Amino acid sequence: MYEKRIESMGYHLPPMPAPAARYLPAARTGNLIFISGQTPKVGDKLVYAGKLGQDLSAAEGYEASKICILRVLSALKAEVGDLDQVIRIVKLTGYVNSAPDFTKQSKVIDGASELLEVVFGEQGRHARVAVGTNALPGNAAVEIELIVEVRGE
Amino acid sequence: MYEKRIESMGYHLPPMPAPAARYLPAARTGNLIFISGQTPKVGDKLVYAGKLGQDLSAAEGYEASKICILRVLSALKAEVGDLDQVIRIVKLTGYVNSAPDFTKQSKVIDGASELLEVVFGEQGRHARVAVGTNALPGNAAVEIELIVEVRGE
Amino acid sequence: MYEKRIESMGYHLPPMPAPAARYLPAARTGNLIFISGQTPKVGDKLVYAGKLGQDLSAAEGYEASKICILRVLSALKAEVGDLDQVIRIVKLTGYVNSAPDFTKQSKVIDGASELLEVVFGEQGRHARVAVGTNALPGNAAVEIELIVEVRGE
Repeated sequence: MYEKRIESMGYHLPPMPAPAARYLPAARTGNLIFISGQTPKVGDKLVYAGKLGQDLSAAEGYEASKICILRVLSALKAEVGDLDQVIRIVKLTGYVNSAPDFTKQSKVIDGASELLEVVFGEQGRHARVAVGTNALPGNAAVEIELIVEVRGE
Repeated sequence: MYEKRIESMGYHLPPMPAPAARYLPAARTGNLIFISGQTPKVGDKLVYAGKLGQDLSAAEGYEASKICILRVLSALKAEVGDLDQVIRIVKLTGYVNSAPDFTKQSKVIDGASELLEVVFGEQGRHARVAVGTNALPGNAAVEIELIVEVRGE
Repeated sequence: MYEKRIESMGYHLPPMPAPAARYLPAARTGNLIFISGQTPKVGDKLVYAGKLGQDLSAAEGYEASKICILRVLSALKAEVGDLDQVIRIVKLTGYVNSAPDFTKQSKVIDGASELLEVVFGEQGRHARVAVGTNALPGNAAVEIELIVEVRGE
């Protein structure tokens, strides 16, 4: 159901992101899944690089954060088999590669938060932290991590 | 009991913070409450803006972090009904808007940590992360998020 | 077993890190331990200070992140009594003090991730977030926090 909704929005889940290093795309403890930070890549290619407020606009950052969250959902699906196992999205943390005077991190991370709400409805509403940072891996524009509660064990 | 202690300290819980965007002030999973990042606002007005070590002193940051944590506690109360549901404060993350050579993030976040300990006693002592950042939403001086364990379900 | 493996690698657990301020080295909720952010200190002395890509190389950062994670494991042992209580390492967050054009945060945090995998094997593989920041407490090069699932209660 949830994956169909993603497709009906004109998006699709990318292949499971391969970690850039020695860690897992996601880890489970009890009913919680912790999903590793994802940057706005399509396959191996970073599609939004640079700093918001310097190299990129807030509107571009908004698009970047949607790409990040689709990769997060792909990692989640790989871990639990089917997005319909989701009970609720619990907590999103968004890091925005920012010029020192860029202050619209919330607008950027809304790209991810709004997609989650459209896909998962009430179950998609979550607690959130959005912060700036002066540097991200590979010069990614945005990095997003997620905590999700899922069924069974 | 806990809210009375806050008032006996000369503080009071502000109204529940309205999220600036599409997310919740707090989200529950099992006995854990994840509270969204809060900045030093009173109502809609940011009262400490700018970077520590450039626009603001560590002492001002310390005050800012107390305002953040009162908003966090307000969001927590809105989620669980009464602060006396708290079993323990688990983990605090504090982001300090910093000039590149500012290194007293711990002193800033102590404002929040010490308030939690005075209000909740032993139950208020928590794990903590304090880091700098070059930019925060709306140019807030500090942003604080919290994980809390509560009773029942 | 796990602590012996650390020693067989030529490392040893340092004494439990004393928090620099009013918080705990680690906090437990259910079967989860949240361990406070640790910087690359030996005793009270910070051994890697400065910014990656300006004052320090990625290789130095890699060493710094190993020192951080040994302190994290020391805090974990103090909380649970014995590292053999570990069921799995769940989630690592690594903050790298970075020049604005430094983009190899992943390489830096690999020092910690790889040590965890060597010590704990499959149980040591974890979800991860690696980000840059323009400033850390005391000008530390790296700060690492960890979430771990442990036995019993």
